[in-house]
Amino acid sequence: MDMIAEARALDAADPLADRRGRYLIPEGVIYLDGNSLGPASHAALAALDVAAREEWAEGLIRSWNAAGWFELPMALGGRIGRLIGAGEGCVVACDTISVNLYKVLHACLALRPDRRVILAEATSFPTDLYIAEGVCAAAGARLVLAEGPVEAALGPEVAAMLVNHVDYRSGALRDMAALTAAAHAAGALAVWDLSHSAGALEVGLDAAGADFAVGCTYKYLNGGPGAPAFVYAATRHHGAIRQPVTGWWGHARPFAFETGFEAAKGMKAFLAGTQPVLSFRALAGALEDWEGVEMGAVRAKSMRMTQAFINWVEAACPGLELASPRAAEARGSQVSFCHANGYEIMQALIARGVIGDFRAPDVLRFGFAPLYLSFEEVARAVLALAEVLESGEWREARFAERGAVT
Amino acid sequence: MDMIAEARALDAADPLADRRGRYLIPEGVIYLDGNSLGPASHAALAALDVAAREEWAEGLIRSWNAAGWFELPMALGGRIGRLIGAGEGCVVACDTISVNLYKVLHACLALRPDRRVILAEATSFPTDLYIAEGVCAAAGARLVLAEGPVEAALGPEVAAMLVNHVDYRSGALRDMAALTAAAHAAGALAVWDLSHSAGALEVGLDAAGADFAVGCTYKYLNGGPGAPAFVYAATRHHGAIRQPVTGWWGHARPFAFETGFEAAKGMKAFLAGTQPVLSFRALAGALEDWEGVEMGAVRAKSMRMTQAFINWVEAACPGLELASPRAAEARGSQVSFCHANGYEIMQALIARGVIGDFRAPDVLRFGFAPLYLSFEEVARAVLALAEVLESGEWREARFAERGAVT
Repeated sequence: MDMIAEARALDAADPLADRRGRYLIPEGVIYLDGNSLGPASHAALAALDVAAREEWAEGLIRSWNAAGWFELPMALGGRIGRLIGAGEGCVVACDTISVNLYKVLHACLALRPDRRVILAEATSFPTDLYIAEGVCAAAGARLVLAEGPVEAALGPEVAAMLVNHVDYRSGALRDMAALTAAAHAAGALAVWDLSHSAGALEVGLDAAGADFAVGCTYKYLNGGPGAPAFVYAATRHHGAIRQPVTGWWGHARPFAFETGFEAAKGMKAFLAGTQPVLSFRALAGALEDWEGVEMGAVRAKSMRMTQAFINWVEAACPGLELASPRAAEARGSQVSFCHANGYEIMQALIARGVIGDFRAPDVLRFGFAPLYLSFEEVARAVLALAEVLESGEWREARFAERGAVT
Repeated sequence: MDMIAEARALDAADPLADRRGRYLIPEGVIYLDGNSLGPASHAALAALDVAAREEWAEGLIRSWNAAGWFELPMALGGRIGRLIGAGEGCVVACDTISVNLYKVLHACLALRPDRRVILAEATSFPTDLYIAEGVCAAAGARLVLAEGPVEAALGPEVAAMLVNHVDYRSGALRDMAALTAAAHAAGALAVWDLSHSAGALEVGLDAAGADFAVGCTYKYLNGGPGAPAFVYAATRHHGAIRQPVTGWWGHARPFAFETGFEAAKGMKAFLAGTQPVLSFRALAGALEDWEGVEMGAVRAKSMRMTQAFINWVEAACPGLELASPRAAEARGSQVSFCHANGYEIMQALIARGVIGDFRAPDVLRFGFAPLYLSFEEVARAVLALAEVLESGEWREARFAERGAVT
């Protein structure tokens, strides 16, 4: 088969091929859903074991200091920061994206007290819009949803412009530097949601001049289900971060047990409550797998891989319509195709061991994580998809019933 | 030794003695700090293993549905609810106490739009006060700190009265029914922080008429370091819960991916972002250990144990001053003693394997968790404390340097 031979040649030239052994991919599965939940690695499971059996069970309360539990948010933030182009001390790991975005958008409104609009793209991942709505209602601000290019809706009332760096449905990649510059030219702050770009490509927050960012670690960073999220703030904003979820971990002196609140300097101002240590430790292990990995190499493989997938699908799977940008540099690390029966087709494909996901109304979504996927797997996934379409097996009743889709 | 003989007699009559084997207490440790971080149990570690090695590593994205990850907040909330006297569907597990209290206090201000004061005790655990301060600043309300009895400060402006059910320093137990009634008589809502009572005594939220409560699961419930917190709301408030951290898990239809927010009915309205599954699963295992346990039996043993500890310390350890209520029914499950050199004494005691903790300025704090402590251990802890005091070993330089104390 030509496609397989082509894939094997690409694998032979892949400088990241040796990373695959670090991850546990189940037998018989081709995993194209790492953009939704990354797989476990040996390092992540080992770190979790140490946290549970040594630090918790043996160390007990002493581990808060002895095992560095208190330092996990800044320590892991630093390791994430290296992967997204953030300077030392500019990233903290904590809470969830939703809660972090809530804090960030409040901080933006506090930095622009004369402006009362938050601008976001109507196509944003919904929780971003819901959180922006909640912040606006609480702070007496107004949420404006741009239906077209978000920068066209900038204006003198906009305090913050919220952009999803990679669109969760189409995989379209936004130009962070250009959009940030446009926001700044209009006097607004630029806030980036990195959920679908952190760990997938070179984000370059500092270089782009971004103001704030939030992101998750359970997709391309492989931190585990519901792993801790993170927040970035440019150095110029440190010291002026005012966010209302003022819990004790965000206090300048948390163990002085003072009655009044005084915000910590720097990124600790985004902390609030005691963090889930076991989930942090799994993430810590997952981040070990990124040591020595250059994001440029990840991005190069990702672009080759998504391009090969598009070529092969378009050659072998008639009836699917590309819903992602055709130019590799305009895509994140995912490819989406539309089909009116996308749900049933994805279910039939999953039944064959090729795991992608579906987004309403008609999007088949495939994620490509360069650290553990081979080109041969991608080619075999395309062959499976072609067989599902050709055989018509997706028409079977067992694929038609819709459950919750993640 | 009389004290040991007395302890052994108490152990022989202890109906909860057989629970001890479920927990991993390190060799050579007497653990009197379960009110800060509960120990690991075999069930908790086993559940964590299943979550990591089966649900995550094998099930991957499929586990969100197949392993019930989405249902964990309400499912674990229900199991916690049974232990704190909350009806079905009145508790949800999520986020941290700080974040949850933030949501609850906003919900209170929304329920009492004509009142703009949050009343709290000046002796509350600091994060409660910091969060209340943050909520007030964000909502244009005012935080009033009661220095004396909190109910004396109730008045027509008070929207919510926030009370720590058990004081974290003294262990004093508040009368939930009486204080709630006082709040209601003044037109205010009663909000309870159960951090030091959930899992230690019969809380009885519904019976007391409480409006809202928050609490943690990493102390007496043994859910693991930084384990998920929980929120309670009385049934009469369901459907009217308006809190501003409106993330997708709190949406009425989270998977419809709608652009606008509509709050879920009931307790799911307190959810926001994707929750840390691994930490949830450890908690799920820990809650298995509570099946079949009656809180009345836990409370009875706790009262006997704290009473025995006070008797023995006062007999054997001159120079320590009781800082907890003397009447067992007025105490939670902890006992505090004051000493000007409390910090050094606690360090010397910990060096002997008896782990309690210290709270500034001079409080030695000891927690008594009835599910895994024996009376003989408590007696041996008292003997160790007496030896530390008598020998003067706490004066050694190695105990004098203060680090972060948790």
